[in-house]
Amino acid sequence: MTSLREPHHDGSPTYVSDEAPAPGSTVTVRLRTDAADPVEQVWVRTTYDAEPTYHPCTVASRDEHATWWEGSLPVHNPVTNYRFLLDGAGEQRWLSAVGVVEHDPPDAFDFRLSSHKAPPDWARDAVVYQVFPDRFARSTAADERETPAWAVPAEWDDAVVFEGFDPRTPAQFYGGDLDGITEHLDHLADIGVSVVYTTPVFPGESNHRYNASTFDEVDPLLGGDAAYVRLATAVHERGWRILGDLTTNHTGDTHEWFVAARDVEGAPARSFYYFLPNGAYECWMGHGTLPKLNHADPALRAAMVDGPDSVVARWLRPPYDLDGWRVDVANMTGRLGSIDVNHEIARLVRRTAEAERPDAFVIGEHNHDASADVDGDGWHGTMNYSGFSWPVWSWLRDPESPARAFGRPVPVPRRPGDAMVRSIREWQGRYGWRATTCSWNILGSHDSARIRTVTGSGAVHRVAAGLQFTMPGVPMLFAGDEIGLEGVNGEDSRRPFPWGDPDKWDDDALATYAGLARLRGEHEALRRGGLRWAHVDDDTLVYLREHPAGSVLVAARRTAGRAIALEAGPLGFADGSLLLGTGADLVEADGVVTLPASDGPSFSVWRL
Amino acid sequence: MTSLREPHHDGSPTYVSDEAPAPGSTVTVRLRTDAADPVEQVWVRTTYDAEPTYHPCTVASRDEHATWWEGSLPVHNPVTNYRFLLDGAGEQRWLSAVGVVEHDPPDAFDFRLSSHKAPPDWARDAVVYQVFPDRFARSTAADERETPAWAVPAEWDDAVVFEGFDPRTPAQFYGGDLDGITEHLDHLADIGVSVVYTTPVFPGESNHRYNASTFDEVDPLLGGDAAYVRLATAVHERGWRILGDLTTNHTGDTHEWFVAARDVEGAPARSFYYFLPNGAYECWMGHGTLPKLNHADPALRAAMVDGPDSVVARWLRPPYDLDGWRVDVANMTGRLGSIDVNHEIARLVRRTAEAERPDAFVIGEHNHDASADVDGDGWHGTMNYSGFSWPVWSWLRDPESPARAFGRPVPVPRRPGDAMVRSIREWQGRYGWRATTCSWNILGSHDSARIRTVTGSGAVHRVAAGLQFTMPGVPMLFAGDEIGLEGVNGEDSRRPFPWGDPDKWDDDALATYAGLARLRGEHEALRRGGLRWAHVDDDTLVYLREHPAGSVLVAARRTAGRAIALEAGPLGFADGSLLLGTGADLVEADGVVTLPASDGPSFSVWRL
Repeated sequence: MTSLREPHHDGSPTYVSDEAPAPGSTVTVRLRTDAADPVEQVWVRTTYDAEPTYHPCTVASRDEHATWWEGSLPVHNPVTNYRFLLDGAGEQRWLSAVGVVEHDPPDAFDFRLSSHKAPPDWARDAVVYQVFPDRFARSTAADERETPAWAVPAEWDDAVVFEGFDPRTPAQFYGGDLDGITEHLDHLADIGVSVVYTTPVFPGESNHRYNASTFDEVDPLLGGDAAYVRLATAVHERGWRILGDLTTNHTGDTHEWFVAARDVEGAPARSFYYFLPNGAYECWMGHGTLPKLNHADPALRAAMVDGPDSVVARWLRPPYDLDGWRVDVANMTGRLGSIDVNHEIARLVRRTAEAERPDAFVIGEHNHDASADVDGDGWHGTMNYSGFSWPVWSWLRDPESPARAFGRPVPVPRRPGDAMVRSIREWQGRYGWRATTCSWNILGSHDSARIRTVTGSGAVHRVAAGLQFTMPGVPMLFAGDEIGLEGVNGEDSRRPFPWGDPDKWDDDALATYAGLARLRGEHEALRRGGLRWAHVDDDTLVYLREHPAGSVLVAARRTAGRAIALEAGPLGFADGSLLLGTGADLVEADGVVTLPASDGPSFSVWRL
Repeated sequence: MTSLREPHHDGSPTYVSDEAPAPGSTVTVRLRTDAADPVEQVWVRTTYDAEPTYHPCTVASRDEHATWWEGSLPVHNPVTNYRFLLDGAGEQRWLSAVGVVEHDPPDAFDFRLSSHKAPPDWARDAVVYQVFPDRFARSTAADERETPAWAVPAEWDDAVVFEGFDPRTPAQFYGGDLDGITEHLDHLADIGVSVVYTTPVFPGESNHRYNASTFDEVDPLLGGDAAYVRLATAVHERGWRILGDLTTNHTGDTHEWFVAARDVEGAPARSFYYFLPNGAYECWMGHGTLPKLNHADPALRAAMVDGPDSVVARWLRPPYDLDGWRVDVANMTGRLGSIDVNHEIARLVRRTAEAERPDAFVIGEHNHDASADVDGDGWHGTMNYSGFSWPVWSWLRDPESPARAFGRPVPVPRRPGDAMVRSIREWQGRYGWRATTCSWNILGSHDSARIRTVTGSGAVHRVAAGLQFTMPGVPMLFAGDEIGLEGVNGEDSRRPFPWGDPDKWDDDALATYAGLARLRGEHEALRRGGLRWAHVDDDTLVYLREHPAGSVLVAARRTAGRAIALEAGPLGFADGSLLLGTGADLVEADGVVTLPASDGPSFSVWRL
């Protein structure tokens, strides 16, 4: 499945001449086949208004190790799917994004090329830092604020209530605020962050604020509008970006729109929600405090997502100047039974955002299969739980860890390397290269267990971080991951950041994250390179990130293991200098490159 | 991959309580696991407005061979996707429509349940007979008609011109007509036909008539409107159905709409087509004689597909009373570069047809991946080249046959049984059970090589026919298949039906088709049963069609082979009586059911 001699193509610059082609243009696609491969003829097969067409490829170059084929791919439709037909020695094989097959498959895993406007460079090159404001840091001003009626005040060192559906859980109020974040930007700089993403800052009667009571102002408990301006300004002064978090799917039941809709006869906002004749209303997952928004309503669209007066637009303008949005519950937004305007809303959010800021970025929360919703003109990408988090968890998890994927009634078992690789290939195939590479590689978030708790080990945690920064996709850290904070579920993971208690910091983790971010910044291959699997066994993953500006080789081990010999020819490289991790430089001997044995979990990167 | 001990589910009544559930209802889904399977817990996982949810299953029954699990599946969205999570012995497996995997896959191959109105029973129970009128039969009236200027008259015994792009090919005029079909309905009755589908009957300056010059009348060369009424009446008098063939994607350049649009300043029909400023226009695959229709235009929609005055509606009313349409080039209809109104048009065609006749059937031509276009409220199904024809061809083909899949630059090689099964499983998964079972199982058509030429052998041809009538889906014969006509491509396959030359008839084939149609009519399992693979090797396919009214076992061999032992327990059956083919009744001995050896290609069906 992952032999280095397998024919290879992916969406990176080594293999595709234009990652952001204009409609009507022609893209050159390249295919690498091993010198020993019996292939004689190659075609790239695409569809043209849903009609299959075959374009012959020619040999662009050939040496003793490999043959490089080239074909021309007309970009006729906005999203072009394609795959390769390899003919030779009486066999026909298809190469799609999940590898080679010898039967005629549907198009589900075809490569994809999008001619929609590309995501902004800053978003693809980013290291994203997610902050849950109530738990990150308190400024001195926080001490002077009154605790609101809905809240249960907590001291910074108090334990988080996280078990069951305890009513105290959303009410525990630690009082972190926006100036607290601003005051700690040096810490973010130390670990190479370039994008600050905060969970919601609009007021809501909970510590998570996903139940907004207005979208017109920043919660005074966080310091209000002025503090948000101070944070955004400080972030931008460092050359970084800032993203907001918008609940397009619902509001809180204290929201001014909902209160008017419910209580005021003939209120215009009545059409913003789904009221039933008996006064009940649709809400998120049965939670009456989270009434669902009706995006089929043009008036709601104008208020929320469409045009310069919308919520989406206003916060992207001065003095806030947000650089885009993370969209909460993007998967369910605009979907209800037989109603599905999700794509329209995704397009409107994107269009409205880009009208304010041409380089705006919009990423959708989708905790499962977002393949129908990305790679188009809507969300640029997704928080990639399914295509990154769960596969990594399943490979690296401590079998005793209680951590679960969302909604899954049982913890996923520890699985061998090939299960992880197969998952990742399939998800990358479904999302397409562009959406994969601008989606967020997350090891956890405010909604899940912490990676440290999943792995149960500092050494394995560092391997996970290595994957996060060196696999295609954009690393997103949930604040505290870098010091090894723990948490068995989303609520528990929201433990306050222990600024005052350095004994709780894992300095090895911190150094690892900082080193990985630096490495990612220095090597374009780690941000834009392809992905070719070089060796996979139960406990080891070795992969190439190929890029014209220089390639790197990555080896991740979840446990101790023997030395691994790779054939230099099929690998396409010989010597390599160690950039990070354990081991030594790689030197070819007799056509073989040998990766060193390891006496425990390890993560190494070499420049080839 | 196809062990009888593999957990099994499909969309048939054995496994799904309601194949046509109402929106908002709850369906019971069942899963069979082998007694030796280590499964301990099962959930059915679906999505709810794109949010994954898990519903626990319970054990409904258990015996020494199998455990039957049941779960409740709420039908929240119009099309519900689902799969099973099996937990036990420290492992988690998923069962989707392509089988069991031990990694976390995307939803691409999830099972699907559609709550859109079900296809009519007559269409699912049908044996469809495709007639290309110019080549089927001439009535005596044909002798008196004048050959039109565009045509090159041909005698019935003349060879078809089929090589290259010879201008004579579409002009060769044999003069078959509609009364010729009416006169031969007894032949159709002999082979069990219940649906007559003719390629276009509207006038067009070609023998194929896919370049219509009007949709308002039947071609006088075919006998005109009166002959069509006679055919439709005769068909209906037998209790059969008749389908037309509509070119929604394009018209001929002699069409009255196009002529007016091109030549008449300000013609309303100008908006029906895509004219460029220089007077050029979009057309099908670059053929200037086939200008493409612009379905974004409301005026075209009203004329063609929308409402009671449309072409779609009018021919479904008396005196023609067509029972539905086969839609030509359905895949490209309404698609052009960044324009895609295909779904809207499919929905309109369906809605308009059902408004005239609640039991109308609409099937789309799609020569590749129609998964995005079926199983909803548009086309009921597709002419299933990809999911049936090509897999069967690849398994049964004569390696020397020049027959090619559409557009494929090289003939597909002969492949082993598991390649065919994998293809079929993947296509069934993508289309879903309902769309698969009302799509047409075709071994060839007026557009492809003949199955007899693909297989190169009468014996193997009969195996192909066996698959066509016993796999999920509706058999569609291209007139002449049943007597073993040959043809290396679509043009060649349009050889006139040799009514006057019985020496050219393969009586074994004829008897086989008649027997298969009878068997299909007698056994609900062959029309509505599930599909469970019992044994697959390079040269043999054995499968169960399970149904509460009685199941059947099918064995197909492409060449001689040894006896095959199946475990009676996992099979779920013991004895079986031979219904068709070679061999004898099946008798269990020591827990094993032995299928007899075969000294050549063979096809057998047993009642269990």
